[in-house]
Amino acid sequence: MGEKGVTLEELKKRMAEFASDRDWDQFHSPRNLLLALVGEVGELSEIFQWRGEVARGLPGWKEEERQHLGEELSDVLLYLVRLSDVCGVDLGEAVLRKLQLNALKYPVHLSKGSSKKHTQINANAPAVADSNGDC
Amino acid sequence: MGEKGVTLEELKKRMAEFASDRDWDQFHSPRNLLLALVGEVGELSEIFQWRGEVARGLPGWKEEERQHLGEELSDVLLYLVRLSDVCGVDLGEAVLRKLQLNALKYPVHLSKGSSKKHTQINANAPAVADSNGDC
Amino acid sequence: MGEKGVTLEELKKRMAEFASDRDWDQFHSPRNLLLALVGEVGELSEIFQWRGEVARGLPGWKEEERQHLGEELSDVLLYLVRLSDVCGVDLGEAVLRKLQLNALKYPVHLSKGSSKKHTQINANAPAVADSNGDC
Amino acid sequence: MGEKGVTLEELKKRMAEFASDRDWDQFHSPRNLLLALVGEVGELSEIFQWRGEVARGLPGWKEEERQHLGEELSDVLLYLVRLSDVCGVDLGEAVLRKLQLNALKYPVHLSKGSSKKHTQINANAPAVADSNGDC
Repeated sequence: MGEKGVTLEELKKRMAEFASDRDWDQFHSPRNLLLALVGEVGELSEIFQWRGEVARGLPGWKEEERQHLGEELSDVLLYLVRLSDVCGVDLGEAVLRKLQLNALKYPVHLSKGSSKKHTQINANAPAVADSNGDC
Repeated sequence: MGEKGVTLEELKKRMAEFASDRDWDQFHSPRNLLLALVGEVGELSEIFQWRGEVARGLPGWKEEERQHLGEELSDVLLYLVRLSDVCGVDLGEAVLRKLQLNALKYPVHLSKGSSKKHTQINANAPAVADSNGDC
Repeated sequence: MGEKGVTLEELKKRMAEFASDRDWDQFHSPRNLLLALVGEVGELSEIFQWRGEVARGLPGWKEEERQHLGEELSDVLLYLVRLSDVCGVDLGEAVLRKLQLNALKYPVHLSKGSSKKHTQINANAPAVADSNGDC
Repeated sequence: MGEKGVTLEELKKRMAEFASDRDWDQFHSPRNLLLALVGEVGELSEIFQWRGEVARGLPGWKEEERQHLGEELSDVLLYLVRLSDVCGVDLGEAVLRKLQLNALKYPVHLSKGSSKKHTQINANAPAVADSNGDC
């Protein structure tokens, strides 16, 4: 990690090394990793499950709760990076491309203040090569 | 994105800007974003659902299927980065800390070739400040 | 439970009673229950995560593993029943209707031996009032 | 469905028949169905994702939104029933057992008005054969 923060590329390398050191490549098939990711999303959800609506910045949360949250967010990220790697997907490249797609799908003037799907706001726009709507 | 790849910090900034430009901060509460993330994990799972076991590198997948996969992986990543941001969690810092925790929880000599949880392999090791087991 | 097995209606009543006895209605809002359900789906996924492909009937699984699986499947079911109830959805009625919809979406002669989505197999069929494809 | 409502047993039979008629048993392996279930949980989450807190009974929701919700709840249920079946788990039996376990884990006098996990409320109670806490 340099001054500019941690890169997806670095996380990928560190996860690959971690798995290789422990002889874990045998377990790291795409669907195994996907189910592990779902498991971590479950743990992330548990943190939020009985709280009712939670405000931005998590006012009133204890330091240990914030730290636990950071761990679960990280677990999701690490499995996501690892899953991408074993699938041969360049996640950094894919995410930059997706940001561009999202900008096409949700033009500022059409989506301002609206949580509608792009298929609802965007009926006259040229088709964009993405099947789902993500606001 | 420089030569070294995309950073979490850069993704955070771009997502914040994207939301701000569209007046979407009003929708981006922690639990809204968490549910959106779960929705994207669902779409990611759909890609793998009827395929049986899938080998690393996804042999036989079409280019458009790989691209679709890259989009869904990216959607999960973007909501994860955004969720971390609105929670006030520094995801880059958290993930580097988690990598260190994982190295403590899964020492190479104890976890080599084993998919056991750290609570099973690690009975004599000092307690580590993390409640779950992630291989 | 009579001779014919447990009904969704009975589960609904027992969950409502369970919550009421413990003063838990205050926690059982729709989104709280939904996140709890996601948490249980995560635990269910953990059971399958490092196993590679698993054959029907789970050959080689220990009795305690099967029992654990039964518990996690039940947890998902119970939260699903409870979520439906607090949303005012009659799950029994909804599921019977959905079975009929599925039969319309996936006519035997068009879907035999195919895992395609109904939108792919069914291009000439009349539109069915359901937005997703579930095989 | 008789006067007493739809049973899990009946849903199991209907799903088995549906799959058999379409030659879909080849696709219905445990992990395929689990991923399909995760996909449906994602669609369920999408319904709730941008709404902020939602009150019980869903005041203000349109009839078509309620119907869509019923469909997604049903999809989760149907895959859950089918997954249990192909795993050889008797879901009706398992869920009745789980209700009893929950009553042991969350005694009324200890859990009244509290969303704590049983491991937190229940320190002096005899160990119960269930590894997770579900309120």
